[in-house]
Amino acid sequence: MDVVEVVPTFEQYAFTFGGVAPLMRIRPGTALRVWSDDAFCGALQKPTDLSGEKVDLRFVNPQTGPFHVEGAEPGDTLALHFVAMEPARDWGASAAIPFFGGLTSTDRVATLQDPLPDTTWIYELDRARNTVTFAARHTDLEIALPVEPMLGTVGVAPPGGEVRSSLVPERFGGNMDTPQMRPGATCFLGVNVEGALFSVGDGHYRQGEGEACGTAVEGAMTTTLVVELIKGGAPLWPRIEDDTHWMTVGSSRPLEDAWRIGQVELVRWFGELYGLHPMDAYQLLSQITEVPIANVVDANYSTVVKARKSLLPRASAYGGLHDDLRRRAASLL
Amino acid sequence: MDVVEVVPTFEQYAFTFGGVAPLMRIRPGTALRVWSDDAFCGALQKPTDLSGEKVDLRFVNPQTGPFHVEGAEPGDTLALHFVAMEPARDWGASAAIPFFGGLTSTDRVATLQDPLPDTTWIYELDRARNTVTFAARHTDLEIALPVEPMLGTVGVAPPGGEVRSSLVPERFGGNMDTPQMRPGATCFLGVNVEGALFSVGDGHYRQGEGEACGTAVEGAMTTTLVVELIKGGAPLWPRIEDDTHWMTVGSSRPLEDAWRIGQVELVRWFGELYGLHPMDAYQLLSQITEVPIANVVDANYSTVVKARKSLLPRASAYGGLHDDLRRRAASLL
Amino acid sequence: MDVVEVVPTFEQYAFTFGGVAPLMRIRPGTALRVWSDDAFCGALQKPTDLSGEKVDLRFVNPQTGPFHVEGAEPGDTLALHFVAMEPARDWGASAAIPFFGGLTSTDRVATLQDPLPDTTWIYELDRARNTVTFAARHTDLEIALPVEPMLGTVGVAPPGGEVRSSLVPERFGGNMDTPQMRPGATCFLGVNVEGALFSVGDGHYRQGEGEACGTAVEGAMTTTLVVELIKGGAPLWPRIEDDTHWMTVGSSRPLEDAWRIGQVELVRWFGELYGLHPMDAYQLLSQITEVPIANVVDANYSTVVKARKSLLPRASAYGGLHDDLRRRAASLL
Amino acid sequence: MDVVEVVPTFEQYAFTFGGVAPLMRIRPGTALRVWSDDAFCGALQKPTDLSGEKVDLRFVNPQTGPFHVEGAEPGDTLALHFVAMEPARDWGASAAIPFFGGLTSTDRVATLQDPLPDTTWIYELDRARNTVTFAARHTDLEIALPVEPMLGTVGVAPPGGEVRSSLVPERFGGNMDTPQMRPGATCFLGVNVEGALFSVGDGHYRQGEGEACGTAVEGAMTTTLVVELIKGGAPLWPRIEDDTHWMTVGSSRPLEDAWRIGQVELVRWFGELYGLHPMDAYQLLSQITEVPIANVVDANYSTVVKARKSLLPRASAYGGLHDDLRRRAASLL
Repeated sequence: MDVVEVVPTFEQYAFTFGGVAPLMRIRPGTALRVWSDDAFCGALQKPTDLSGEKVDLRFVNPQTGPFHVEGAEPGDTLALHFVAMEPARDWGASAAIPFFGGLTSTDRVATLQDPLPDTTWIYELDRARNTVTFAARHTDLEIALPVEPMLGTVGVAPPGGEVRSSLVPERFGGNMDTPQMRPGATCFLGVNVEGALFSVGDGHYRQGEGEACGTAVEGAMTTTLVVELIKGGAPLWPRIEDDTHWMTVGSSRPLEDAWRIGQVELVRWFGELYGLHPMDAYQLLSQITEVPIANVVDANYSTVVKARKSLLPRASAYGGLHDDLRRRAASLL
Repeated sequence: MDVVEVVPTFEQYAFTFGGVAPLMRIRPGTALRVWSDDAFCGALQKPTDLSGEKVDLRFVNPQTGPFHVEGAEPGDTLALHFVAMEPARDWGASAAIPFFGGLTSTDRVATLQDPLPDTTWIYELDRARNTVTFAARHTDLEIALPVEPMLGTVGVAPPGGEVRSSLVPERFGGNMDTPQMRPGATCFLGVNVEGALFSVGDGHYRQGEGEACGTAVEGAMTTTLVVELIKGGAPLWPRIEDDTHWMTVGSSRPLEDAWRIGQVELVRWFGELYGLHPMDAYQLLSQITEVPIANVVDANYSTVVKARKSLLPRASAYGGLHDDLRRRAASLL
Repeated sequence: MDVVEVVPTFEQYAFTFGGVAPLMRIRPGTALRVWSDDAFCGALQKPTDLSGEKVDLRFVNPQTGPFHVEGAEPGDTLALHFVAMEPARDWGASAAIPFFGGLTSTDRVATLQDPLPDTTWIYELDRARNTVTFAARHTDLEIALPVEPMLGTVGVAPPGGEVRSSLVPERFGGNMDTPQMRPGATCFLGVNVEGALFSVGDGHYRQGEGEACGTAVEGAMTTTLVVELIKGGAPLWPRIEDDTHWMTVGSSRPLEDAWRIGQVELVRWFGELYGLHPMDAYQLLSQITEVPIANVVDANYSTVVKARKSLLPRASAYGGLHDDLRRRAASLL
Repeated sequence: MDVVEVVPTFEQYAFTFGGVAPLMRIRPGTALRVWSDDAFCGALQKPTDLSGEKVDLRFVNPQTGPFHVEGAEPGDTLALHFVAMEPARDWGASAAIPFFGGLTSTDRVATLQDPLPDTTWIYELDRARNTVTFAARHTDLEIALPVEPMLGTVGVAPPGGEVRSSLVPERFGGNMDTPQMRPGATCFLGVNVEGALFSVGDGHYRQGEGEACGTAVEGAMTTTLVVELIKGGAPLWPRIEDDTHWMTVGSSRPLEDAWRIGQVELVRWFGELYGLHPMDAYQLLSQITEVPIANVVDANYSTVVKARKSLLPRASAYGGLHDDLRRRAASLL
């Protein structure tokens, strides 16, 4: 399988879902190797680079794309299978941005308090050990942490002519910020506009669930993925399949609504997978789901709801596409 | 180590935290083997037993206890180390109770819609295979699931003279409904009243994160635990330590507030464990926490925030009490 | 009509709903004239009295009561008609208490930020003009504001053996903090325990809707009220009737759930008042309700939902008790 | 003053804020008399017209506009003074749309319950009496209610290249659904793009606070307004001034965050109006604000925070523009 290399210039970065002309047209079945800049457009390079001084908030969370998938129409299902994610720089950056994050008041959780201090942490990458190093700013503690690359942001153009910031997670995917969006996963998204117009970005060298401070170990990323199209079958909300789990992602506020969305979407999917009545799916999932919070910091909060395949009878979604993509991807590694 | 056996009569069941005379006085260091009834007081025994007909809502979530711990004073820390949990019946029960649960309107998420149908599922226990079997009510699907016993409810008497239903998770612990409350875990709770007055109950043979339908595989349980007391050092919110993780549990509404509470409590704990400045703890935890939702169905919603010990330098809480309790517990197995 | 005077000593103050022996037994039909201390037990008397230094948080929101109403049984309806509320001191106090209030992070909306500065404002009462004076602490601005006395806290003992802090608004009433609880209003509460065990307190010389900073113009109050009992008919949530409006109060978190509760309770009440189908009541109320937020600062948030009588056909609740109480009250003024 | 008449064709309706070419370019100071269709594009005309059959959800909440205001630049303040609103049809329509509204589960408050029955109510307008008549669908009750016209939706193009559905209330205004947006009010909105690109629509012949069922008495409307531009001074969130109140509107989820936003914006405005320190504004507003909920049904929930001018020293915003507009408007009536 050939792989199309994509490295956008800054002028080609997309900062919204929808509202941007396609960067490239591709056919279903295409493998891409795409470079994406980090969420700060590379502006934070050392601990003294403060977000308040260096980051232009008009230019955050740049996307590589959008890609127009030939033949994709509203109601279809886009499948993005992530083969590999490789750090494209030797460092990642994280920051406590004033009035942004989960343990601070924000423009929405509005209070009269002062912001937390604008602070930057730089994580050096050790490619040999495959670690990034946390270095405390107030003490000498250093901790090498495994690189576990993921993409914060994967999405398609929204319906109804809307154009949304790349900071938003929604029904169309977007900035879900879940560690589940990692190599080996296939993400299924409903297509809203002709061509689907998907894009990816916001690489994280690692991230805790919740993304508490609002930023992960943000880093430029080279992502290899295979793009497929299923006619029809659009899920209402993003679904993810990997070798071990069936997953859904709900995004809304308050956080319980994000969870409800994800849990109902998985009930729906289990109806498709196992022919289960909604009440039986509700019951079964009540006893087996894993529910890691994705983010509590973005424009919507996101929650993942997962069911472990090894607990369940064998089933197949979208004609076994995930397994097929795994096989195809093997040739790319 | 001797083990004190405790099997309460129905008349001795406690249905509140606080407001109940001690069932027993024990010394720190005591090992207990306590039987607890299931959340329905055993009322649901077959699929045709409906919660609306069989369950007396004045008598749900019975607790075994409270236990008065000698020497415990407000500001102290109670440590409960769970050694073993064994199903005490050959079946567990779960139910979709009208207007109770996460994917239905409730007395709080009030709508004008009809309730979901009152439905009961009985899970037969296979002791040899250590499974409970989900049996769909609308199709023939049956799935044997591993028994993973846990306690939904572990708590002490609240402060300020309050008395709370055993259905409530709060700062004092209570009905947190997290699968993390399992054998091998040590739970640390701040003491609010003389004697601490802790109780346990609400055994689950297994439960998914979120406890979506509001009830787990509810079952009578025999729990072996060791009780210890630390003078002072009361955490603000429940903490759990096991061999692999440092954990906190936040409980409130909306769910993001439960998360905030847990995340801030873990920041605080990391200050104690590693001498980290709050901003550094905030940053470090942002990159490493696992955040499984516990419940989105109780009087408060609960979230667990976990940090994996293997990622971190070695540290010790409460003088290494958890490791010590593990050693002591070994003689009880 | 005779009036029973009640002035408790500090030792007689109640700080919970439930869990306190009756201060007095009264018969239905009794008129009371009760003195209640302010929410700080009088600890803030000048602007240099800071809450962090002067207020003992174990002793806040003192209640006068509880009163045992003879004949009251669970399922009955307690009616409290407020005839008059008179400031009992010549000043009121308000404070920005660290980590308490609506525009700050709190123990629940937990962040890592510093608290707002602990600040006290004293409002001098001008009895002749019937005003209290706001005096800015950072500039010279002074504004005389009309006294509009109300009670923050009116409630009965909760069900299920629970005991709740007087800071809590709930189904049993409690710390709802709505300006609607003023002279001329009749409050209907469901009785949960024998004798109802109601109490009142938390007088406010005036308060804005939302009680943004967490404290009103807190002042000792002398309240004249008439107590009546209706056998049966307990509303699920507090209802208020005055000469102009039908009202309900919902209390929960998040705030939309408080609203849902109140709106559904008013749908229910309109079914009783007008024989309306729930869908018709839902529609009608959608076009006429006034919905002032009560508080966004207490253990639960509270919202009032009101329907203006002048828009509606004449109707009568509880056998016209409110009108009857108005007539009876006239003799007390 | 001349008045520009604007009656769009269906093809000219706008269904988003942003993303639409200007319908017209106008100069600051222009008076407009604009016709807007109802939220259903006139599809519901009799009680048997059900939303599920007649309403095309791609075409709801049509806006008249957008208007390009000459000279308007990002950071400026757009002032829209509403002079008159006149029902443009002889009936209004309201509906309980399945899975839309406040007392039902929705696509966000997702449950497994059945929807409420799809139901339509038609309100006949009596121009002589200036009433619309509620007619119950399940009984014979009819109630004539005063016409109190308002606009549900007033907004400008969002920043950052976003395009938002006309169903969304946000920082840019939009579908706030507050009865305060009525004749006599001046709405101040921050300008985000050149020309401001404002539009109006979603006329309501009357609406209760909260808009409980999700739809008001929806009706085509003829609105007379005067458009002004203030260089600079953009408020962060919508502000409204009328003869009696200073007001702000916050929109987010959960509802407490909408309230926080509005309350903080009014603290900010009081800093401008009275030179008050934020802590003093916080305190003063805590004692005087009226806080009517606007909607609990839209993509964001909205709350209004109001301060009554008669309680306060005289002050003037934006150079006394509101009073000036009132004078100018007098000539249009």
